[in-house]
Amino acid sequence: MTNAQLTLVQIDNYGPWTVTPDPRREMDLQTMQSRLFADLAQFIGGRGGYVFFTRFDNMVAITNGLDRTDHELLQETIGNRYPVTISLGTGIDASPIVALESATAGLQRAGSAQDGDRREVLSGDFLSASERTPEDVQIAHFDVNDATGKYTDQLNEFDSFIQIEQGYATLMRYLREEHGALSFFVGGDNIISICPAMSADDYHESIAHVEADAGVELKVGVGVAETPHEAGMDAKHALEACRHRGTAVELGVPHDDVGVATD
Amino acid sequence: MTNAQLTLVQIDNYGPWTVTPDPRREMDLQTMQSRLFADLAQFIGGRGGYVFFTRFDNMVAITNGLDRTDHELLQETIGNRYPVTISLGTGIDASPIVALESATAGLQRAGSAQDGDRREVLSGDFLSASERTPEDVQIAHFDVNDATGKYTDQLNEFDSFIQIEQGYATLMRYLREEHGALSFFVGGDNIISICPAMSADDYHESIAHVEADAGVELKVGVGVAETPHEAGMDAKHALEACRHRGTAVELGVPHDDVGVATD
Amino acid sequence: MTNAQLTLVQIDNYGPWTVTPDPRREMDLQTMQSRLFADLAQFIGGRGGYVFFTRFDNMVAITNGLDRTDHELLQETIGNRYPVTISLGTGIDASPIVALESATAGLQRAGSAQDGDRREVLSGDFLSASERTPEDVQIAHFDVNDATGKYTDQLNEFDSFIQIEQGYATLMRYLREEHGALSFFVGGDNIISICPAMSADDYHESIAHVEADAGVELKVGVGVAETPHEAGMDAKHALEACRHRGTAVELGVPHDDVGVATD
Amino acid sequence: MTNAQLTLVQIDNYGPWTVTPDPRREMDLQTMQSRLFADLAQFIGGRGGYVFFTRFDNMVAITNGLDRTDHELLQETIGNRYPVTISLGTGIDASPIVALESATAGLQRAGSAQDGDRREVLSGDFLSASERTPEDVQIAHFDVNDATGKYTDQLNEFDSFIQIEQGYATLMRYLREEHGALSFFVGGDNIISICPAMSADDYHESIAHVEADAGVELKVGVGVAETPHEAGMDAKHALEACRHRGTAVELGVPHDDVGVATD
Repeated sequence: MTNAQLTLVQIDNYGPWTVTPDPRREMDLQTMQSRLFADLAQFIGGRGGYVFFTRFDNMVAITNGLDRTDHELLQETIGNRYPVTISLGTGIDASPIVALESATAGLQRAGSAQDGDRREVLSGDFLSASERTPEDVQIAHFDVNDATGKYTDQLNEFDSFIQIEQGYATLMRYLREEHGALSFFVGGDNIISICPAMSADDYHESIAHVEADAGVELKVGVGVAETPHEAGMDAKHALEACRHRGTAVELGVPHDDVGVATD
Repeated sequence: MTNAQLTLVQIDNYGPWTVTPDPRREMDLQTMQSRLFADLAQFIGGRGGYVFFTRFDNMVAITNGLDRTDHELLQETIGNRYPVTISLGTGIDASPIVALESATAGLQRAGSAQDGDRREVLSGDFLSASERTPEDVQIAHFDVNDATGKYTDQLNEFDSFIQIEQGYATLMRYLREEHGALSFFVGGDNIISICPAMSADDYHESIAHVEADAGVELKVGVGVAETPHEAGMDAKHALEACRHRGTAVELGVPHDDVGVATD
Repeated sequence: MTNAQLTLVQIDNYGPWTVTPDPRREMDLQTMQSRLFADLAQFIGGRGGYVFFTRFDNMVAITNGLDRTDHELLQETIGNRYPVTISLGTGIDASPIVALESATAGLQRAGSAQDGDRREVLSGDFLSASERTPEDVQIAHFDVNDATGKYTDQLNEFDSFIQIEQGYATLMRYLREEHGALSFFVGGDNIISICPAMSADDYHESIAHVEADAGVELKVGVGVAETPHEAGMDAKHALEACRHRGTAVELGVPHDDVGVATD
Repeated sequence: MTNAQLTLVQIDNYGPWTVTPDPRREMDLQTMQSRLFADLAQFIGGRGGYVFFTRFDNMVAITNGLDRTDHELLQETIGNRYPVTISLGTGIDASPIVALESATAGLQRAGSAQDGDRREVLSGDFLSASERTPEDVQIAHFDVNDATGKYTDQLNEFDSFIQIEQGYATLMRYLREEHGALSFFVGGDNIISICPAMSADDYHESIAHVEADAGVELKVGVGVAETPHEAGMDAKHALEACRHRGTAVELGVPHDDVGVATD
């Protein structure tokens, strides 16, 4: 069974800030948002977690391995270096969507995302060392079969993007509805999902659904570990195995267990 | 009539690089990609253009006002500071999708995006000063009505994201198919579109389509100018006007003309 | 005759900010300062200028080629993305120190660097296009002879640093007092000076002074051009010529003139 | 007694890279160097250490609290995101200069800083948890009395800089020669020193020496703790105490001991 610690990162009162006193230059907002995300990626990634840009003003992270002190330090360092501050809500559950529900609810209880007085909230619980296990995190790394040959080198970039985006939109809804998994587009033709304990069959069915519904062919590598980084690296290696073996689904060997590979 | 100069920014041979010699840490890739995008946003934005992250390995920019020298300097400065290089293809047309088609074709003719020998290509033409007019660029800035109240403060963040994403997916396909416009999610509940000469009625129909198809209510401010930055700022002010007037569509006053506002 | 446009960049009320309400984490201050400098380097460097970190809260730039609009845009983009704002003062003179004196005086007249109400001042004049000539900027690029062999690979890093620092301290004072030139350590064993019209003999004497006073052997390449970037690149090439020819002083060929090389 | 773990960060083969195949744009080098330093400051600072830019191609860090795994991760993440790689050498000693000597020697033994084949060396030892004590790190934070009133608001920026620089140069040499301490200019009028166990009298003498030799009046706050961050924060608070009490030297209360404040 998985046990994901999810963190919702929310820029405090961001919408109003972007138009106060007048609308700010869009490219400055894009720069600030993407650098803030990059700093989160370094901070969280260097401690074994994963963060996704999602909507940029709200970002979702899986933070197994980061404790309360880490979260406080993150708020402090961002507050010291950016014109905006961040609130953080955490939640823990076997189901990623339930964990995120809890993480979100903590911030919502503290006030609206556009409440000017609600700043640097930190709510929710953190996994203690004794609760953690080598199966807490399941990460699936999907990509599109031959995206370069079929799309990038053939279509104009926007139509390539639409194809990839369609595949992503279909997968994200399917995995959320069927499994409570959270899927994020991470660039190129790559999608990374935070999953509950899912089987090879579950992944085969997901891929079949996306192909049937959106006409996009995916493959997936899956990893299970104590931290997102370890699970994600196993997933990447498993995806490489898909490439070499021509398979659609590969499950990485769990770190403390005998693994079973499958196509 | 609009006359958009589109630039396709493509990281050279990026996919293979991310797994050579072994898969690289995902959070390092995310950091590198988003900082590269931020640097493009500063470079292009400081010269009056707009760039969108699209798939991060392929980014789309509208660069009216940037000439060949600017594009060469951009390639040089990125090459000096990143572990990757970029190729740039440009295209010019009244229709954004046709301009991008042309920009993409220039790079495709030079080789595959995953051709290890194809580096720092610069292809395509640039608008000369004499060709430029105050109506070359039409930018539409959409956002979702009361996204904070309806989604962010009510749903868990992933379900909020799904709602916004659905609205975006519907709009991007509609505008591309009906008008050859290119729409990009830019964070929060905001979508920015590079449009051909479209009327207030066209925008009303677009918004109606998204509401009917995805159940997401949008409003839009539109700006027309010689550069993306000016058109985009007019669009932002027009969107503020929507907020204050409770209207769904506002067209900013063209810089060299008498404008007509409409809801 | 040179004609340098100097810009003083001053972070508004920075000292008090670093300890309000409590002293901030030093590594956050270091991060913020050095990233702000990096952004200035990109902005100013991409427009042909040079900026030096100096004291980080006060930075000195040579900005021939950047006009008032560029300076306003720089203030706007920094204000949009950092927790601090910057004031800019400019000055123009054949003598770099006189130009900087004027640039500094403009900000001093507007109030103290630690006046909480003095924000985003922009004072001073800008070179008009008609005033500019191909000899406006003289840049000298010094380095230490065989610094790696004599210091880096032999001494502990702090003692290497002391040697380089001594050479720099001696040179900076000599050039300021004798010629009104402004010299900046730019990393490694490199010093870049903004100079008035100086001759090869002047440079030979400077180098001899540093060797006699601090025991550090320098060589120098010099460039003259309309912009700092062009002059600086010529200086770099001239310094490469020193390396290949074993000479101590090389003057790059002026862009619009017949140059004279000398050792 | 202190026990400092020093880390020398050296960019591999940097000098040759900056001129290969041709000299690179200086502002790109400045950008890359200062962003690399900023990333080190975040990485090391977020784990309780301090890093100083020194010469930028060689940077000195005090890393009590960072183990071998942290150092390996730092090399990996920089290698993934920059066009250059870094070597790291560590050393441990009661005397900071001896620790740095040892850190430097480890890299020197592995080859020259400009050896193209010597990449990502990691040499030296790391303090084990059992060896660490609450008195391992002594940090002194100096600043100049009324620098804004006496220099910044009075002189041109270069002459202000010369004054500060003179004070720094004198202090750095004195502390290195008399105590084996390592002093770094950190911007504004601030100098931070990594010190061995020094007394209040030692600091009074240092300040008197700088005033006599360079005419610059300093004050200093000192902190002692298990990590540089904690010692540095205590030093900052002690420096604030100097300001409020009008004293020249304040020693922060050691974390696990009864402290003695002194002027």
